[in-house]
Amino acid sequence: MACRDGRNPVMEPFFNPRGVAVIGARRSPGFGYFLPLALRRQGWGDRVFLVNPAGGEVHGMPLRRSLREVEGEVDLAVLIVPAQRVPEAMREAGERGIRNVVIESAGFAETGDGGRALQEKVKEVAAHYGIRVMGPNCLGVINTANRFSTMEVVEEALVPGPLAVVAQSGVFGSILLDALHRMGLFVSKAVTLGNRVDINECDVLEYLLGDEATEVVMMYLEGTADGRRLRRVLEEFRGVKPVLVLKSGRTPAGKEAALSHTGSMAGEDALYDALFAQTGALRFSTLEDMLRAAEAFVSQPSPRGGRLAIVTTSGSLGAMAADAAVAEGLEVPPLSPSTVEEMRRGAPGWMNVRNPLDVGPSGLLPKGLRAVMEDPAVDMVLGIAVMPYAVFREFKAMGATAGGLLGDIRRLRAEFPEKPLALCSLGEAEMVEGIKEAAGGEVPVFTSPEAGVKALSSLWRFAAGPTAGFRVPVQERE
Amino acid sequence: MACRDGRNPVMEPFFNPRGVAVIGARRSPGFGYFLPLALRRQGWGDRVFLVNPAGGEVHGMPLRRSLREVEGEVDLAVLIVPAQRVPEAMREAGERGIRNVVIESAGFAETGDGGRALQEKVKEVAAHYGIRVMGPNCLGVINTANRFSTMEVVEEALVPGPLAVVAQSGVFGSILLDALHRMGLFVSKAVTLGNRVDINECDVLEYLLGDEATEVVMMYLEGTADGRRLRRVLEEFRGVKPVLVLKSGRTPAGKEAALSHTGSMAGEDALYDALFAQTGALRFSTLEDMLRAAEAFVSQPSPRGGRLAIVTTSGSLGAMAADAAVAEGLEVPPLSPSTVEEMRRGAPGWMNVRNPLDVGPSGLLPKGLRAVMEDPAVDMVLGIAVMPYAVFREFKAMGATAGGLLGDIRRLRAEFPEKPLALCSLGEAEMVEGIKEAAGGEVPVFTSPEAGVKALSSLWRFAAGPTAGFRVPVQERE
Repeated sequence: MACRDGRNPVMEPFFNPRGVAVIGARRSPGFGYFLPLALRRQGWGDRVFLVNPAGGEVHGMPLRRSLREVEGEVDLAVLIVPAQRVPEAMREAGERGIRNVVIESAGFAETGDGGRALQEKVKEVAAHYGIRVMGPNCLGVINTANRFSTMEVVEEALVPGPLAVVAQSGVFGSILLDALHRMGLFVSKAVTLGNRVDINECDVLEYLLGDEATEVVMMYLEGTADGRRLRRVLEEFRGVKPVLVLKSGRTPAGKEAALSHTGSMAGEDALYDALFAQTGALRFSTLEDMLRAAEAFVSQPSPRGGRLAIVTTSGSLGAMAADAAVAEGLEVPPLSPSTVEEMRRGAPGWMNVRNPLDVGPSGLLPKGLRAVMEDPAVDMVLGIAVMPYAVFREFKAMGATAGGLLGDIRRLRAEFPEKPLALCSLGEAEMVEGIKEAAGGEVPVFTSPEAGVKALSSLWRFAAGPTAGFRVPVQERE
Repeated sequence: MACRDGRNPVMEPFFNPRGVAVIGARRSPGFGYFLPLALRRQGWGDRVFLVNPAGGEVHGMPLRRSLREVEGEVDLAVLIVPAQRVPEAMREAGERGIRNVVIESAGFAETGDGGRALQEKVKEVAAHYGIRVMGPNCLGVINTANRFSTMEVVEEALVPGPLAVVAQSGVFGSILLDALHRMGLFVSKAVTLGNRVDINECDVLEYLLGDEATEVVMMYLEGTADGRRLRRVLEEFRGVKPVLVLKSGRTPAGKEAALSHTGSMAGEDALYDALFAQTGALRFSTLEDMLRAAEAFVSQPSPRGGRLAIVTTSGSLGAMAADAAVAEGLEVPPLSPSTVEEMRRGAPGWMNVRNPLDVGPSGLLPKGLRAVMEDPAVDMVLGIAVMPYAVFREFKAMGATAGGLLGDIRRLRAEFPEKPLALCSLGEAEMVEGIKEAAGGEVPVFTSPEAGVKALSSLWRFAAGPTAGFRVPVQERE
């Protein structure tokens, strides 16, 4: 039921409600206290209705004793009441005609038998009224386009961007959102699924496939609710939008941890591996690798092949990058004769014109980057821009900036819109910050050569697709 | 010729000269201009003698026309003259009785045939006078104990610490030193080897083995000058001081890059793998992994086993850590019955008392950390301290600090001096910074669960030693 026209009547009220009721709004600190405040700040003041049997008001907004007292149009209810009170609150919502509910309350299947019984009760009530439920034990959604959010996040996390985030756990999803904007990663939608009594990752993926604001999906799972359906929906994403996946439970210890956390059966990990590989979803083994790949996906185009050129001011870092590239299944091919000829003109005698291209302290990094961006034998480019403090100081004394080392990198990015480009810088703080500033978010800057290579290789993994016989990465040795 | 008494007559003048001549000091910007200034600032003003045939002065220090005009005691010469002038400058040094020379000049074997001939000439002169040569094409040394340095670095890089750095390339070594202090990594000695016409990594390792200020060695190589000797010296380090190695040329592309960079033959990589594995040197496949391991080695004790306990405020991050632990060859064992009992007392009903121990928002992270530090079934501990922004804000409003989430972590560190402890935090900036501040450099703080686990696993790799049958890590999947 993927809706490519962007409309999805089941999911739409979660992200774009006409009005929202917060059941369990309260006057003492807690989510029920801060969420109404956040929603008002985000421009939802006239479409938020607060419910608490105690009545009164909070933040100058009235607390209705029950949903029946709410007069406005409401098509989404957010439940922040104690677990035991959730079934009754759902009945009230059902009677009111509300068909979308986010249950933020915890204390269900994740806590053992008593909670499991309560969770069954929730299912029954939902079925009776035809209510679609997100949660329980989740924080719901964010939609940056309309600044709607059922979770509290830092203001910067509400800046619209092309990345959708799907996380099973509310805490982890929330922490991720606190962190992403600092990496220059901004989101379209975010969803935390919790115990998945109804809405699961497949529902959300179907919605995101049709969501025009979403270009890349990043997902953390502890297990799937429905393997066959997940396969089907991931196949629909193939070649359309990359889906980056981190799934824990890779090992028996991780599997047990997932079970006790959100009650997920992690299942046989090899089956997940096959599912992701065959559908073209990109699985990562570490959170960092997934985040870095996301940085490349949101800013860089899709490469036409796996041939990487490396241009560097440090031979050592260039050699590390070349090692990483081969280990990741990329090629580090010879440069075209015309590129070699061009670089040799005006190059100092010590410079070996090859790939990796070590320009050393020649100042030829901009020329080198341009030459390989132009080179038809190259599909993507990693620029390594480092400079020892001692050299940087002289450079500065002559009125130059750290970014000057790169030349006009944003113009270069704009001139060759079809070739991915990433940068790496490390060392003295001011130097590294200068490089990041010069790149201006249009070219990702990584702080190790291997990180840059891994991010670029993910672009090629997606572009090559599941059937293109992507080479198995060389096992990492330590 | 490893000298465990810390004296090493061949190497000593490189790190602790009585007096140093800078041949090629100059009045126009360049290393020859800034190095005398740096040495004077570091307290070497009365032991530095500057030589330049043009005469005059720089920074108020006289420029002698030749070494013959220098009156002070000089046992080390640093050459910053053009490559062609190096052999003659060495002859002058030899005549003066100087037996240690650092050649910073580039333009030797790394540039092709002409340079190779010049490098042979350097060897001849060195042999004739019995001069020990570091370089050419290097930046020499740093000794933080006496603030002596033949390379310019940021002031913070001169704070003494337990880590020795050996790098083949001057540029890379220099950049690494610019970066290390920002990670809380401070050095005892640093050496950049360059083209290794004489002094190589084996000489330096022998010196560092006997150097009391050095507890951990971090080395970047593009190839060894003498495999048999490297094996011998690494065997001497076994069980004494960890040697962390990053060697490029793991792949054909990396190998070619190394060849053109410092003229190193990278050799068969599998042989290096065997050499490092058999001697107990710890090889890393990425710069980041090596740096993170160094963070753990400089601050944490050696573990007695590979049994890891994970205590976390996020179940998802705990599951990721458990996966990484198993992939790295660690165990995630059940907690002792007494620990389980202790944690159950006063724990909320939803808490699953197991390993990983997910304490959620209970505020029981300090209690959990203490319990596993005390647990005899646990050899090392990873604490994951995260908190969503929304929760953090309430926490702050009640007067608490981010660090308070941890309890008195430095006291805990001090109370259990024999068990390694690492932390992980991510999310909202103030929260993460607060955790780092609370840890105060005594416990390393990583920004991903996998990074923390990898760093701890390195400690166990070293402690287990090469013959303890360390389990081969599970291949990483992506």
